Amino acid sequence: MTTSRLPICPDLLLDLDGPVLKLTLNRPDVRNAMTHELVRQMIEVVAWLEDHPDVGALVIRGAGGTFCAGGDIKGFMAAFRAPKPAAGQPDPIMADNRRFGSFLMRIEALPQTVVVAVEGAAFGGGLGLACIGDVMICTGDARFALSETGLGIPPAQIAPFVAARIGISQARRLALTGMRFDGAEAGRIGLAHEVMTDTAALDARLDRLLADIRRCAPGANATTKRLLMAGKITPLADLLDQSSAEFARCLRGAEGQEGVAAFLEKRKASWVTGA
Amino acid sequence: MTTSRLPICPDLLLDLDGPVLKLTLNRPDVRNAMTHELVRQMIEVVAWLEDHPDVGALVIRGAGGTFCAGGDIKGFMAAFRAPKPAAGQPDPIMADNRRFGSFLMRIEALPQTVVVAVEGAAFGGGLGLACIGDVMICTGDARFALSETGLGIPPAQIAPFVAARIGISQARRLALTGMRFDGAEAGRIGLAHEVMTDTAALDARLDRLLADIRRCAPGANATTKRLLMAGKITPLADLLDQSSAEFARCLRGAEGQEGVAAFLEKRKASWVTGA
Amino acid sequence: MTTSRLPICPDLLLDLDGPVLKLTLNRPDVRNAMTHELVRQMIEVVAWLEDHPDVGALVIRGAGGTFCAGGDIKGFMAAFRAPKPAAGQPDPIMADNRRFGSFLMRIEALPQTVVVAVEGAAFGGGLGLACIGDVMICTGDARFALSETGLGIPPAQIAPFVAARIGISQARRLALTGMRFDGAEAGRIGLAHEVMTDTAALDARLDRLLADIRRCAPGANATTKRLLMAGKITPLADLLDQSSAEFARCLRGAEGQEGVAAFLEKRKASWVTGA
Repeated sequence: MTTSRLPICPDLLLDLDGPVLKLTLNRPDVRNAMTHELVRQMIEVVAWLEDHPDVGALVIRGAGGTFCAGGDIKGFMAAFRAPKPAAGQPDPIMADNRRFGSFLMRIEALPQTVVVAVEGAAFGGGLGLACIGDVMICTGDARFALSETGLGIPPAQIAPFVAARIGISQARRLALTGMRFDGAEAGRIGLAHEVMTDTAALDARLDRLLADIRRCAPGANATTKRLLMAGKITPLADLLDQSSAEFARCLRGAEGQEGVAAFLEKRKASWVTGA
Repeated sequence: MTTSRLPICPDLLLDLDGPVLKLTLNRPDVRNAMTHELVRQMIEVVAWLEDHPDVGALVIRGAGGTFCAGGDIKGFMAAFRAPKPAAGQPDPIMADNRRFGSFLMRIEALPQTVVVAVEGAAFGGGLGLACIGDVMICTGDARFALSETGLGIPPAQIAPFVAARIGISQARRLALTGMRFDGAEAGRIGLAHEVMTDTAALDARLDRLLADIRRCAPGANATTKRLLMAGKITPLADLLDQSSAEFARCLRGAEGQEGVAAFLEKRKASWVTGA
Repeated sequence: MTTSRLPICPDLLLDLDGPVLKLTLNRPDVRNAMTHELVRQMIEVVAWLEDHPDVGALVIRGAGGTFCAGGDIKGFMAAFRAPKPAAGQPDPIMADNRRFGSFLMRIEALPQTVVVAVEGAAFGGGLGLACIGDVMICTGDARFALSETGLGIPPAQIAPFVAARIGISQARRLALTGMRFDGAEAGRIGLAHEVMTDTAALDARLDRLLADIRRCAPGANATTKRLLMAGKITPLADLLDQSSAEFARCLRGAEGQEGVAAFLEKRKASWVTGA
């Protein structure tokens, strides 16, 4: 596992630390607003991670003390001024909007365990991105909002991911009032899984979570994540059938054999110390 | 927008305040128990609201310091004594019961953003009504219960709306124990989105919520609500497709053009001050 | 209703107290780890309960101050060493694993109202079992974990029941970190419905819950539970149709007639004092 193959991404900081890739949105001058170009670079990282299942975890943060202020306003304005398509032609605004949802679906489906750590602002698309983590932690003074309807538009590609995280009921409240809320409220409603007092505590908690995740076998985690996501749309009995097949495959596989042997021998499994 | 067309509803107080309709259940002598007649009047209001999408918000409360003590006992007793239908004939009890679920589905689907504010009791059907709001706030000493099975009957038309609000797990607990619980517990389990110390705080919070809602474009809110509700039964990729079409429609529409222009010109959008 | 027909289950304590069956996992020397044999005995109890709908409630606890430490390690090791099936033959590991999910589905579908009370550890399969209760209460110092992936295997038959209880988002967090957490955290994330300070408080709360449940008609509770479970997979309008038919059946039935009559006569219904 080397860093040499990591894609070149000027708007991101990428740090491969053993089996953990740390990705930092790095446009602090615009509070890490997401341009097309930034999303394009993130998709390159996603593609790289899909090809590197031995990397077990991804951490997503924002540079400069803030997570992500949302979509890029300039790009948005360009769309706003885009001419109407000719009759029968597809609307480029539609395809452009849909692209962000495709990105969120793809990053959420990564085999890696994804931790999102939020400080400062997570607005609009930044809030959507915060919702795709397997674990989401934030500081108590982080700020969140789904304020799109104040601009006369729906949070179209974002709301489904927020609803998947906190339920449709809370998503209705947030999206239809556009209210700002802080990290403590994010924890109360389950948007954040854990709320830390400040950045130092967030850093410490992140280290501890990564230590926990590194004790989990990467392949077993990827399988578990895939089964949990499949559970959204698979009838229970079918899901249990699939799950038993995956259980047998994992137990007979290298990770299962090593994991159980390590347990019997009272030692750490090979993956615990990294590759 | 005038009040002249509001339906005549003797059991309700209706107050149209700019783009906000305030509806108060007004049978305080029976703690606003829901008769057929009261539900019929509410359906008239729902029909009126469906025809007035420029009204952006609906507030539902109960007069006399209580929200709604549930279904009307007298009407219930009449059903209890209804003769059995002849073989092959539909049971009138069934149709009568089903009507309440149809009402809840229809009021929940309103294009308006609906705020429910609960003081005092919200039992049975009153608890069901409290669950259809986009935002539900209550006082800490409000009282709730799903006590139907103590009468030997299921909370048939109500439980699905409770389960949609708080999850099937919590709904099982409440419906199968019939336990009474207060506003603080309602907040803890997500039945109430926010819990206030007393009526004065409830009133103040309601004003603030309505100010937030009035900053949201009514059409964008109606679209967002419809998409969030559709998300219950629509596969994610299809939902994102629909959402991108709605996004383009809204951005090219009057609200989107006004909303973005107002943002660029650093002024309030036209809808913020009401009609 | 007599105890004479209760199945003989050496690994369980069974105590039929009026309309309440108390089941205690009774292998405290191995912290009530679930062997095939123990699960087989539990399935016998489940079959007995399916045939005794007049028993209104089931309580599940563990002996020796702990709930259940999970699956039996020895049995697990035997599976680990099982030879691979011949090509085209079913893998016995798969069938063995699937059996536990079938058990959880069946016990969750019981007509009885099920209360699970957790002290000490609830790990792996024990955590799965804790998730099938209609009400789950625990002590603040109870300990929980989904630590399977640390052994290189997925929590295959368990995770779907955890996800049904606390949502897929929280289930991803717990399953992909394997973190240990206590009763207070279980309450915060909705895994436990109520958290008690110690065993004495747990006992007292259990008595109170059973008193509440005994005020509910057993048949109406069974119907309500069945409808709530059906709501997971039934479109809302269809569910409301079914619910209205069940409502009419219950109101015209013995429980409905007795329940409403008792209400009118201001007396307790016949089922309140038990059989």
